[in-house]
Amino acid sequence: MSRPPLSKDTTLCISLAARPSNIGTRFHNHLYELLGLDFIYKAFSTTDLAAAIGGVRALGIRGCSVSMPFKADVLALVDHVEPSARAINAVNTIVNDAGVLTASNTDYLAIEGLIGSHGLAPDATVLLHGSGGMARAVGTAFRDNGFRQGVVVARNPVDGQVLAEELGYRWRPHVGGATAAIIVNATPVGMAGGPEEHDNPFGESTVAAAEVVFDVVAVPSETPLIAAGRAAGKRVITGAEVIALQAAEQFERYTGVRPTAEQIAEASAVSRA
Amino acid sequence: MSRPPLSKDTTLCISLAARPSNIGTRFHNHLYELLGLDFIYKAFSTTDLAAAIGGVRALGIRGCSVSMPFKADVLALVDHVEPSARAINAVNTIVNDAGVLTASNTDYLAIEGLIGSHGLAPDATVLLHGSGGMARAVGTAFRDNGFRQGVVVARNPVDGQVLAEELGYRWRPHVGGATAAIIVNATPVGMAGGPEEHDNPFGESTVAAAEVVFDVVAVPSETPLIAAGRAAGKRVITGAEVIALQAAEQFERYTGVRPTAEQIAEASAVSRA
Repeated sequence: MSRPPLSKDTTLCISLAARPSNIGTRFHNHLYELLGLDFIYKAFSTTDLAAAIGGVRALGIRGCSVSMPFKADVLALVDHVEPSARAINAVNTIVNDAGVLTASNTDYLAIEGLIGSHGLAPDATVLLHGSGGMARAVGTAFRDNGFRQGVVVARNPVDGQVLAEELGYRWRPHVGGATAAIIVNATPVGMAGGPEEHDNPFGESTVAAAEVVFDVVAVPSETPLIAAGRAAGKRVITGAEVIALQAAEQFERYTGVRPTAEQIAEASAVSRA
Repeated sequence: MSRPPLSKDTTLCISLAARPSNIGTRFHNHLYELLGLDFIYKAFSTTDLAAAIGGVRALGIRGCSVSMPFKADVLALVDHVEPSARAINAVNTIVNDAGVLTASNTDYLAIEGLIGSHGLAPDATVLLHGSGGMARAVGTAFRDNGFRQGVVVARNPVDGQVLAEELGYRWRPHVGGATAAIIVNATPVGMAGGPEEHDNPFGESTVAAAEVVFDVVAVPSETPLIAAGRAAGKRVITGAEVIALQAAEQFERYTGVRPTAEQIAEASAVSRA
């Protein structure tokens, strides 16, 4: 299939970010082609968020993906905030239904989905490394799904203690020899091109003691942490799974069509090529 | 050539109208394909003009074509108004240069261009039929180019006399047997699908006495008036020429590229197919 020629009835979806990448544009347009949907998607930047969101509403732009640094500021500019976005005060998805804007967070929804699909049991302890936006999404999704025992590891004592307190978890500044059944990396450690791309954010003994090794870093999907988890025979959950699931959720909200896992994987590969 | 795949760097141009057609969307996208330009164009409607124009500015939408009923109201929403739009208090083209919006009217510019390219001399009298927006554009372009002698024919005495007064022309409610060297139709008479599609807005004697027969009706380009003008051996100027020239002006303002007459003709044919 391929998408129909552009017409006045073609539906536009966009993204807003201070520094847009091409990943979303390639991902969504590839799926539109694959599925023959009369949609187009394009990344935008703006220096006037309120006017940009006003334009989304007034022009009938169907979907608006939201990236840094706009994820919190858009909360005040929409009509409805779903629990997924309210839980972490961060929006990554806005759907426009005839001028009524509804905000959600499909990262949070993806973490929730993976907790369920991987059968993680809430009596396990969670060791969460990181205190940024993604760490908040991960920690809140675990906590909201019944995981009451947890530790936030974050060098920054302010951010770390704030997040730990929000979650009802403990805080520690370094992993040290801490152990837990579920260990989750939500820092940039292991990210391709980053200063710590060859590093494992947890020590060897922490990986050895874990049952589940979860890394939200998506590029590469085989991070040093994931590699160590596989080598030690642990159940692993990759950042590529998070991205694919959040993207499928977002895509379905915009188009009403749920792509298959294979279609998502193909579009993800194309979008990162 | 064809346009590159959609990316974050693809430039978006749009149109705003209460009831959008597909003509502009087809026309511009066809030329983007033909010229290999990394642009896309799509028609939009809105019920909130100020927010829509705010969105054009905030999202960096490069060009915005303006149709009924927004042509006058956008004057207050842009940063600069060029003389072509100021002359007739009507905008059909907005160009966005890094958040600075400049409004112009390429219908007016096209009429001016045709007066020049057809070598019409300003000592001739103009008999202008119509008193709507297009009649104002035509009359003002003639007047601004030195045509001091003119008559506005319009059944509606209010609109007709207002326009005649603006132009310094006389007004009459019906053509009657009036004659002039240049006769211009700016009414819907002769328009395909309209109630008077087979009619000639001027009488036989008026056509016979004219030197130039000008019809702004573009569909069909061979209106009953143009056919009568050709049959009588007159110089004719068609609405298709007006549309092609205004579209070329608009296209060049948005993209910086001037299509050839052949490219414009091809895109026009495609857009009306």
